[in-house]
Amino acid sequence: MPIGIVKIAKEPSAFQGFKAISAGNIDQLYNSSFNKANSGIVVDFGEHLTGYCTITINTRQGNMDAPLRLKLTFGEVPAEMATPFDPYPGGLSRAWLQDEIITVGVLPATITIPRRVAFRFLKIDLLGSSPGFQFGITAISFKASTSAKITPSELLESTSTIIKQIDRVGPNTLKECMQTVYEDGPKRDRRLWIGDTYLESLANLYSFHNDSLTRRCLYMLAGLANEDGILSADVFEEPAPHSHKTRLLDYCYLYNVALKEYVSATGDKQTGLDLWPVAKKQLDIARKYALPNGMMDYEKANHEWWVFFDWKDGLDKQAPLQGITIYTLNQTYELAKILGKESEVADLPGFASKLKDAAHKNLYDKKSGLFVSGANKQASYGGQAWMILSGVATKAEAQRALKALPNTKDAVHPGAPYMYHYYIAALIASGLNNEAKQALIDYWGGMIKKGADTFWEVYDPANEFKSPYGFFPVNSYCHAWSCTPVYFIRKYPKIFQ
Amino acid sequence: MPIGIVKIAKEPSAFQGFKAISAGNIDQLYNSSFNKANSGIVVDFGEHLTGYCTITINTRQGNMDAPLRLKLTFGEVPAEMATPFDPYPGGLSRAWLQDEIITVGVLPATITIPRRVAFRFLKIDLLGSSPGFQFGITAISFKASTSAKITPSELLESTSTIIKQIDRVGPNTLKECMQTVYEDGPKRDRRLWIGDTYLESLANLYSFHNDSLTRRCLYMLAGLANEDGILSADVFEEPAPHSHKTRLLDYCYLYNVALKEYVSATGDKQTGLDLWPVAKKQLDIARKYALPNGMMDYEKANHEWWVFFDWKDGLDKQAPLQGITIYTLNQTYELAKILGKESEVADLPGFASKLKDAAHKNLYDKKSGLFVSGANKQASYGGQAWMILSGVATKAEAQRALKALPNTKDAVHPGAPYMYHYYIAALIASGLNNEAKQALIDYWGGMIKKGADTFWEVYDPANEFKSPYGFFPVNSYCHAWSCTPVYFIRKYPKIFQ
Repeated sequence: MPIGIVKIAKEPSAFQGFKAISAGNIDQLYNSSFNKANSGIVVDFGEHLTGYCTITINTRQGNMDAPLRLKLTFGEVPAEMATPFDPYPGGLSRAWLQDEIITVGVLPATITIPRRVAFRFLKIDLLGSSPGFQFGITAISFKASTSAKITPSELLESTSTIIKQIDRVGPNTLKECMQTVYEDGPKRDRRLWIGDTYLESLANLYSFHNDSLTRRCLYMLAGLANEDGILSADVFEEPAPHSHKTRLLDYCYLYNVALKEYVSATGDKQTGLDLWPVAKKQLDIARKYALPNGMMDYEKANHEWWVFFDWKDGLDKQAPLQGITIYTLNQTYELAKILGKESEVADLPGFASKLKDAAHKNLYDKKSGLFVSGANKQASYGGQAWMILSGVATKAEAQRALKALPNTKDAVHPGAPYMYHYYIAALIASGLNNEAKQALIDYWGGMIKKGADTFWEVYDPANEFKSPYGFFPVNSYCHAWSCTPVYFIRKYPKIFQ
Repeated sequence: MPIGIVKIAKEPSAFQGFKAISAGNIDQLYNSSFNKANSGIVVDFGEHLTGYCTITINTRQGNMDAPLRLKLTFGEVPAEMATPFDPYPGGLSRAWLQDEIITVGVLPATITIPRRVAFRFLKIDLLGSSPGFQFGITAISFKASTSAKITPSELLESTSTIIKQIDRVGPNTLKECMQTVYEDGPKRDRRLWIGDTYLESLANLYSFHNDSLTRRCLYMLAGLANEDGILSADVFEEPAPHSHKTRLLDYCYLYNVALKEYVSATGDKQTGLDLWPVAKKQLDIARKYALPNGMMDYEKANHEWWVFFDWKDGLDKQAPLQGITIYTLNQTYELAKILGKESEVADLPGFASKLKDAAHKNLYDKKSGLFVSGANKQASYGGQAWMILSGVATKAEAQRALKALPNTKDAVHPGAPYMYHYYIAALIASGLNNEAKQALIDYWGGMIKKGADTFWEVYDPANEFKSPYGFFPVNSYCHAWSCTPVYFIRKYPKIFQ
């Protein structure tokens, strides 16, 4: 049920320039005639929800002598309520924006909007009515859905407020993305993506413990692999499960990592054994692009694949690719050990070691203490993160590199929360615990301070309107890959106090 | 099923400036991708239909990675397809306009628009899609509804083409308005109104012979009378039958006339006896406003009632009221005679006679040969019609008056087809058969020549954009009160050859 009415007010200091200010009890709406005077009213549900909205409308005075036309706009953040959607400048489908126009012919009417929406705020505009009668909106309800079934345990009382706040919003984000699959974002792009599934499954291990959802996703991805056995980065569940046939290199790798984490955490070896051939098959990618000198042939791979790592223009991906390949080889070998399948991949330790040595030799810049990437020797957060997570960097080199980054003028910063995850993981892996905590507080805490109920798909502290799609309202403000603070905070309670 | 694709072209000589030109087979739509290039395509169903539209959409290429947003605009006439609805300047609810916006999340999809629509043309606009896939509209169907069950018999082969054309469009109009009640117009205002029911039931007697629908409407109106027994001019059927409590004087009278015509034509005396107390009660109106001098107290009645007669600004209603009162008294007495109830209304012949004499004395202008109305002695088509139908005018006076009208500079012309009906009836009653035929050809034939599939609510040959509601697309182009040519043509076959 909605918790009240809000006014969406311009406020330069607020996120994206708009703030929701409490403007009364919901009964004020239910007990009033709905007309031009209150058209545009915004109802607040107090939290982010995903599911189906039902609205009840009744005649208040006179006889309904004409139909009504209403527009219901569902939004995750206040600025979505205040920004006209048309003419639509975005690159993605205009239909992702959640404004639905309904015609109501007979009152009383209880109408469930057929479309699933993800939102906190609902704006109701009156587009058509008759002067012959008065009507009112007498009830609004929402049937929220998630496959998260429990409430995560409380943190220690002594934990700092900001960590508690960040910790709470992570599962709030995750539960919204946990439907019949791990979705990317419940408002926009409900596909099952491997990279997001990996991060969601990590967060799930430390919050909702819905292992069957992780298992379901791993099987679904495996079952929808391409004919050559290579996984598709994303698959659709409806109308029948089908693959998008997206060949995204780093996501194929992360399937192996996700499977290893799942089997390791749950002890479900049967699933591990079922899916082991799939994981083994993804190693073909590493074998295909590894050059005799131990370096991955990034140029060739990039020509034949989508190599992603981050939404960040200009990021050179040579170092990240080298790092994630080593990481995957090692993690897959760990999985083999759990499953008793080492003999099938006996070459992996040597293979990984060769790539590791080559990486250190070719990508480490002793002078700056940074790992560099590509012809232009680019230093990036992503490059350091993957060189560290892969074990290419010694602990001392890792600390030096990560400490040097903030002072490196042209260092390429993470573009999206997805890369921030690996950066935080690298800080922890390097023993830079305080820095890890501070980075988490600065980034995810920054969203909290700006009023986030759920963590966003895109967050650039310097540009709140940043959108990979040309229009910020089509960004997802509840996005799977941003949910991992709960994983870090609960896996490393001594760091995140 | 649609019959093809049309182009809505500007054509100054066409009705309202637009013409639908055949632009291809419907398979051209079904076999193409739907995209910006064919957004705005108009599908033609070839005839006016009322009911529910179903559209099937399929993926043609790639994977559906985003929802679709489509606008479906249903229109009765070509100009509705070419006139932007917003910003909406009309006085009635914007929601009457039949444009529905849908979001489609999963393909293939077969979607039935929940709203009942009345239309011939369907325009489909693409409001949102993704470059990631191609889709197509692969089927459109329509489930049309009417309670007309038979096809009217053919006219004599020798009947003139224009009379045949007019005759065909009358039932096409009527069948659309015949749903669970006699509707006013299936696109807009689906209420049951007494005045329209009277004309529809006359047309029904000479076309579809659905007597049970007439009976149902007569009972429904009676059952929803006001507490004082006076009928409400219009009632609603949904969500449960209820009255609008509209006190429209001339429509109360016409209930009696409609009941008399029904009983007389069907021989269903039981219904007549059931509803006789209702009819008798409406006579209270005549008794209340009749002055001792035999004139109706128009000023008082007009103060206390809606006195309608026509959508025509400036029409003086003294003469029409006097005429319809006499007509109703006579018709009700006819009904009493059929039912053997003369003794209950024995005063009616004398009462009618007194009003008739007073009318002739006070309203007939011997000099001009016209009946005049009100303080300004207005001469109107409506005034002559009701003075003639009531028998106030002798046949000679009637002919003189009707012949004088076209040459009377300030004569108030009929505003809507509703009043035209009574004008034609008056011409026939006066024995001006050729003039009746010519007036019917000029007026209803004028609509035919302008491409009417069904007869319109409003038709002013001099102003095709005329609208009582401030915006011509919200006019009803299939309207009950325009359907009566079929009644005249088939009741008077010798006149309408």
